[in-house]
Amino acid sequence: MPRQVKIFDTTLRDGEQSPGASLNTEQKITIARQLAALKVDIIEAGFPHSSPEDLHAVSRIAQEVHGPVICGLARAMPADIEDCWKAVQYAEKPRIHTFIGTSNIHIEKKLRKSKPEVLKMAVEGVKLACSLCPDVEFSAEDAMRTDLDYLAEVVAAAIEAGAQTINVPDTVGYTMPWIMAETLAYLYEQVPALNNVTVSVHCHNDLGMATANSLAAVQAGAGQVECTVNGMGERAGNASLEEVVMALKTRVDVFGCETGVDTREIIKASRMVSSLCGFPIQPNKAVVGANAFAHEAGIHQHGMIMDRETYEIMKPEDVGLTESVLTLGPRSGRHGLSQRLGELGYEISGEKLDEVYQRFLAVADRKKQVYDEDLAVIMQEAGDQTPETWRLISLQVVSGSAARPTATVRLAREDAELEAAEIGNGPVDAAYAAINRLISQDPEFSKKTLELEDYAVRSVSLGTDALGEATVRVRRNGEEAVGRAASTDVVEASAKAYLNALNRLMIKERRAAESPGM
Amino acid sequence: MPRQVKIFDTTLRDGEQSPGASLNTEQKITIARQLAALKVDIIEAGFPHSSPEDLHAVSRIAQEVHGPVICGLARAMPADIEDCWKAVQYAEKPRIHTFIGTSNIHIEKKLRKSKPEVLKMAVEGVKLACSLCPDVEFSAEDAMRTDLDYLAEVVAAAIEAGAQTINVPDTVGYTMPWIMAETLAYLYEQVPALNNVTVSVHCHNDLGMATANSLAAVQAGAGQVECTVNGMGERAGNASLEEVVMALKTRVDVFGCETGVDTREIIKASRMVSSLCGFPIQPNKAVVGANAFAHEAGIHQHGMIMDRETYEIMKPEDVGLTESVLTLGPRSGRHGLSQRLGELGYEISGEKLDEVYQRFLAVADRKKQVYDEDLAVIMQEAGDQTPETWRLISLQVVSGSAARPTATVRLAREDAELEAAEIGNGPVDAAYAAINRLISQDPEFSKKTLELEDYAVRSVSLGTDALGEATVRVRRNGEEAVGRAASTDVVEASAKAYLNALNRLMIKERRAAESPGM
Repeated sequence: MPRQVKIFDTTLRDGEQSPGASLNTEQKITIARQLAALKVDIIEAGFPHSSPEDLHAVSRIAQEVHGPVICGLARAMPADIEDCWKAVQYAEKPRIHTFIGTSNIHIEKKLRKSKPEVLKMAVEGVKLACSLCPDVEFSAEDAMRTDLDYLAEVVAAAIEAGAQTINVPDTVGYTMPWIMAETLAYLYEQVPALNNVTVSVHCHNDLGMATANSLAAVQAGAGQVECTVNGMGERAGNASLEEVVMALKTRVDVFGCETGVDTREIIKASRMVSSLCGFPIQPNKAVVGANAFAHEAGIHQHGMIMDRETYEIMKPEDVGLTESVLTLGPRSGRHGLSQRLGELGYEISGEKLDEVYQRFLAVADRKKQVYDEDLAVIMQEAGDQTPETWRLISLQVVSGSAARPTATVRLAREDAELEAAEIGNGPVDAAYAAINRLISQDPEFSKKTLELEDYAVRSVSLGTDALGEATVRVRRNGEEAVGRAASTDVVEASAKAYLNALNRLMIKERRAAESPGM
Repeated sequence: MPRQVKIFDTTLRDGEQSPGASLNTEQKITIARQLAALKVDIIEAGFPHSSPEDLHAVSRIAQEVHGPVICGLARAMPADIEDCWKAVQYAEKPRIHTFIGTSNIHIEKKLRKSKPEVLKMAVEGVKLACSLCPDVEFSAEDAMRTDLDYLAEVVAAAIEAGAQTINVPDTVGYTMPWIMAETLAYLYEQVPALNNVTVSVHCHNDLGMATANSLAAVQAGAGQVECTVNGMGERAGNASLEEVVMALKTRVDVFGCETGVDTREIIKASRMVSSLCGFPIQPNKAVVGANAFAHEAGIHQHGMIMDRETYEIMKPEDVGLTESVLTLGPRSGRHGLSQRLGELGYEISGEKLDEVYQRFLAVADRKKQVYDEDLAVIMQEAGDQTPETWRLISLQVVSGSAARPTATVRLAREDAELEAAEIGNGPVDAAYAAINRLISQDPEFSKKTLELEDYAVRSVSLGTDALGEATVRVRRNGEEAVGRAASTDVVEASAKAYLNALNRLMIKERRAAESPGM
């Protein structure tokens, strides 16, 4: 049977310390609920003594979020520990996590104490915490730069004082996997009592090694990994929850360990944290990046998808990606191309298909993988009409601090042209409001609301006359679609991207309506 | 003396295969020049047989970029290898890199050949390449999932056929550091001739292990690491050049290896690749992320910066960051706060400082690190005027497909108010053009052009009435500044962010002008 490794999520504590990532209490509760759905073992919900707001947020989470242990951080100081208990006491399974720096540099330059003084503070902190709370974790901050003998002494004393979890953090992201393994092996040897408690690891990613170091610790016997969603955290962040969990799952053959995490909730957690913290995820981020599962599907003439295993070691659905990004490649046949184009709502055949196929092959040879976005460009270059159910005829906007933002939009739906003007909070909001008013008259989908999930504009080239590319994600009735458009006018790009997303969504909705229920 | 490890950059080949990352020839040459400035050992410039454009780009780079070896990729097929030579032949130091899949899954499902057939193709490919080019590299694609005996057989045959570099790729990002080390150890044992050639490693990051696996290979004897800037590449990308290089440099104590890379060019390369490929870098990306070097500086009462080593293992200037992000923390004194505010262009003292210091402490307790952006919010809440040399009085914009984008801007500069209207490619361009016309009349900096380095807008909250946050990076005369502003009106947010950046830039320029030359 695989050994269980506990996942200790510190997105709300260490993750929230990222510059520019502050979350309010409601947002923290929203994330904590998702962490509970993800089935992490422990949620470190905050640092209660640091501010009344943080204390309040942790106590709200302790009261309202069920399932995981709810933990608060506290320096090894009485006031910290007491405030921590005030916050976590309401939890079904509360934990106090107390810490003190043990490396020479922390002891001398940050704490300005002696080693015996720090040891005494650690012991007293753990004892106080244990007098309040049945579950206490102790961390030796900067453990990986701490003198090994002293580290063993502090760890042994903390266990004797009552700590049931001993955390060995690589606070500055400095260690290497084999050094982590050697350190834990040394500690297990010097402190036999470690075998009766849970050893935890907390790695930072300054050299890109947080996941590797966490896994090395698991191999060396650690039973808890501290990590954050998307690897959020100070500087280069913490070990990524999704990488640690998926590496243990994918390579269970070599680790022989499992976590209790429901991996199908990973993408939802990742997107929620990214959105609420305002932290974008780069496309090539492992597991959760937009490209992580984008791979050449090499669709054959008979529409059969080539063996996924060739390039895929995880299944997108395992992390909760409902729609995998299948791409075409140089070996995709004409049939595969026309099928994919059909799925995207393009209907072509005959000579037109020949022409498009030649363009496709030129792109496929160069890029190896051809994405839906590339197909859209190919179809555009081939002079094809995108399946625009709704089309922008004209847009006129008046806005600015000196004006009430007003948009006048003229749209075409088949042969009919409709126009509307709306006022909004800004020109994009006004344009979207005007579009919404018109599309709400759509005979097909009049009753359903279009929700804007995400909206971003970026410059594609440099300079003030740069082309702006707008990307919009919309959702209606459970179906989701992404639209893109580029223009030197951000408002126009935004309006076109919105309609592009809407048109794609309508194709999906029609297809869903036609397909037999399963 | 440290052992030399060669850095083989494949940003232009494997990196460019990322969806949505296509580069034109001029952009490729620009990046190749920066890779030469970075002093990588080998530039893999493309896959010449894949398209005439790629062949042309590789041959242009071979002719125009000096310093590194210029390499092209070719399948182990005559037409591929011949086209590759056509492109790289112009280089001072050309290399042909030929490959074939050796794992069962690649042999059976992708190539549909037998093992002896694949072995024969590998040998013939290497021989043909060697007949054309003095420097040949051979890769066994998907080596880490290849039967070890067969892998040893193919590798031995490729060396005998003349390959001087043998690459062992982890094509699907599946391996773990100790398995990589064991595989190389086995190969060195089975194929003694490996000691006479360079062993190379090429890792993908599907489980977040690409850097760790590359370093494990170096420890096991590999003399070349294949990587990309920002870890670009298919799916979750390749090993990040910056992580591999900085880990080897920072931990030279344990690796005993060095690279020839000029690390001070890393940030420039990272930003260039990000910008030209349109791939954002997440703030917590190791080494090159915006927060990678953001750390609490704990400025003391006497203005002395606390020992950086406490939380910093690399120096920002080592990777070419001219300005490190120093932040304040709970232990920063009143003097430290007022000094930092002064550097940001705020001038406060007395009671006002007391009030701001109390607000600061509340934020510092909660966030631990207080960034310049946080200080701006604190100052705003404290009712303080930001040091707005130029201030937006009003903005009016008319735009849309039905109109010529026109902006009318009224700005204040001290007591004077000025206004101008300009036409642009879009409303933001028009607003910036109008602002540029007014600020070009600035008595202080009339002669210098303001360059827009980056521009992005994103929604801070969800929904169509979301607040849009604009971030702008501008540069003038070597000085750079970032401005931010939020508004429900993206054009207004963009204009305010531009002025915010300009005002910060002017403060920096004044300070630079006042400081004694060094």
